[in-house]
Amino acid sequence: MTLTTSAWHSLPPPALDQQIRTRALEHQAMLTKPPGALGRLEQLAVQFATWQGCLKPKCDEVAIAIFAGDHGIANEGVSAFPQAVTVEMIRNFVNGGAAINVLAKQANANLWIVNVGTVSPLGFEGENLIDATIASGTQNFLVQPAMSESECLSALDAGRRMIQDIVPPGTALFVGGEMGIANTTSASAIASLILDVSPAQLTGAGTGLAEQGIAHKCKIIEQAIQRIKISSQKSDLNTFEILRQVGGFEIAALCGAYIAAAQAGIPSAVDGFIATVAALVAVELNPAVRDWLIFSHQSEEKGHQIVLAHLGVDPLLNLKMRLGEGSGAALAISVIRSALALHAEMATFEEAAVSNQK
Amino acid sequence: MTLTTSAWHSLPPPALDQQIRTRALEHQAMLTKPPGALGRLEQLAVQFATWQGCLKPKCDEVAIAIFAGDHGIANEGVSAFPQAVTVEMIRNFVNGGAAINVLAKQANANLWIVNVGTVSPLGFEGENLIDATIASGTQNFLVQPAMSESECLSALDAGRRMIQDIVPPGTALFVGGEMGIANTTSASAIASLILDVSPAQLTGAGTGLAEQGIAHKCKIIEQAIQRIKISSQKSDLNTFEILRQVGGFEIAALCGAYIAAAQAGIPSAVDGFIATVAALVAVELNPAVRDWLIFSHQSEEKGHQIVLAHLGVDPLLNLKMRLGEGSGAALAISVIRSALALHAEMATFEEAAVSNQK
Repeated sequence: MTLTTSAWHSLPPPALDQQIRTRALEHQAMLTKPPGALGRLEQLAVQFATWQGCLKPKCDEVAIAIFAGDHGIANEGVSAFPQAVTVEMIRNFVNGGAAINVLAKQANANLWIVNVGTVSPLGFEGENLIDATIASGTQNFLVQPAMSESECLSALDAGRRMIQDIVPPGTALFVGGEMGIANTTSASAIASLILDVSPAQLTGAGTGLAEQGIAHKCKIIEQAIQRIKISSQKSDLNTFEILRQVGGFEIAALCGAYIAAAQAGIPSAVDGFIATVAALVAVELNPAVRDWLIFSHQSEEKGHQIVLAHLGVDPLLNLKMRLGEGSGAALAISVIRSALALHAEMATFEEAAVSNQK
Repeated sequence: MTLTTSAWHSLPPPALDQQIRTRALEHQAMLTKPPGALGRLEQLAVQFATWQGCLKPKCDEVAIAIFAGDHGIANEGVSAFPQAVTVEMIRNFVNGGAAINVLAKQANANLWIVNVGTVSPLGFEGENLIDATIASGTQNFLVQPAMSESECLSALDAGRRMIQDIVPPGTALFVGGEMGIANTTSASAIASLILDVSPAQLTGAGTGLAEQGIAHKCKIIEQAIQRIKISSQKSDLNTFEILRQVGGFEIAALCGAYIAAAQAGIPSAVDGFIATVAALVAVELNPAVRDWLIFSHQSEEKGHQIVLAHLGVDPLLNLKMRLGEGSGAALAISVIRSALALHAEMATFEEAAVSNQK
């Protein structure tokens, strides 16, 4: 089974409103500042105008979803933290103690946690916790595919359902995050296979491996890729198959969420390395999704720069972060809101009776 | 007359609380995230703890002051905008239509506009407009010093008075901005003389000069520097004399404000090229002030990178802005607040019962 072009994730996002885009650019040129002086804030305002089909767009309602799941590859000792941390951090998200909780509150954004499958059952519930369990973690992709085809489709679908069923109407921005011990290993393997770049260039410290740990992690990825290349025909190794072979439930769900958000006319702020790899998969599956993504920050995780460069994007922020959880993307919310406020509220040269350029 | 070491701007800022710094670092290490994963946000939190002598610092009260004044050097055709724009933009600030007004409102920060001297009288008043006129603009530094010694001292003092007399007690952060047609010319000349770097490396487009305009502006700066080097003994060309010769009232006032803020125990968020040159002057006059400055953003203005590199700092944001008005620094406010909220509100490993690194 492979994905057919009639599958939901192949459906195009809405067409961009080029007329509003032109008008937004004209409006920017009339504001009391040298043309271009607000740099990327001007671009953001014009992007949101185009997305919303509205000359003075807003970004009041923001939905954040953290997809969390376990990885079989964690058995290979590729993380600095024990696997139990996935469940422990889900509890921390539910109890409001994690970084993304603080940032969501700070940005007055809605936050959901989506459990796509952990090794141990959670043993707790929460108001903003959604159960979308696919299995008790993925399989160890060193020895077998991480997911079956139906599991991989279900994981993509968990992201779609988040957008279609949970995200409230009127949401102006989707922020996706992830949590899952060993998921930089999965993301590095996906990026290596899609971009045909060696694992050594894409494998980093994750949550904090030392040099030896990184070397081991890299070797595991190399061996897994070796296994896949032997077992697959080259023509079979399409994007979906790569995701299925070495991905994670939360990475696939995030990918599905980016696609579904774009289809719903909602732009997404993409977080760091893992989220950017999920976005890469989304763009490979549905290229027009790319026009609906804001790459929010440059992570410290090795490999992020390579994936960003492949996508041809320069992220908004670089605060030397490497946490995940959507934390970098959440920081971009206030930059976006400032951009939209400037666009909507600044006086024009005419209104303010300010002389324009000589 | 030169500045004596007993002058107010030579007085040291308060000593930094190293004990709180150590405790803040220890607290960061206990929060539920891999150590260092919040990157510069962790550093900001520890800096504010150290500045406030408080383990869980806050940044609720922010004071923004825009110093505005005219430049005699504008007569040499060094700007893309007519000189009248300085007064027109002061009116725009007073009426709330400029970028900094929108950003101040967005950040819930207090905003003042300080008129340090324009060619034409303002002809209007405003609730948040402070008259600190020194003269009707500086002199044309191509042919004579921009300021007399007493004018330069008064301009520095205008910054001090802003901090000491206007900024409310309890202010956690000072954001300084500037407005003054031709003031990138002044800033480039100051930086060239202090850093002994050629004007060609430091002269940029300002509000939007084309290549030919930049070449002309650069030639004017070179000629002015030639004049000063001929008329001054090398030993006389200290920082104060450089500021007096080629500075501007608003640049000197901003410099004075940075020094006085540090002395009052208030850190400053430094804006773009012109503000960074004012900060450079402040640090040259009073080196300990450096520990109280947050370099908020990388401007597109040529020369900014060189001055930042001399100061050994890497700014927080890079949004391709080149507006001035304190706009880049104002955007850093929400990043700072997020950093402090994370530091204060995240759960520790113990509180959340999350396993720490293996």
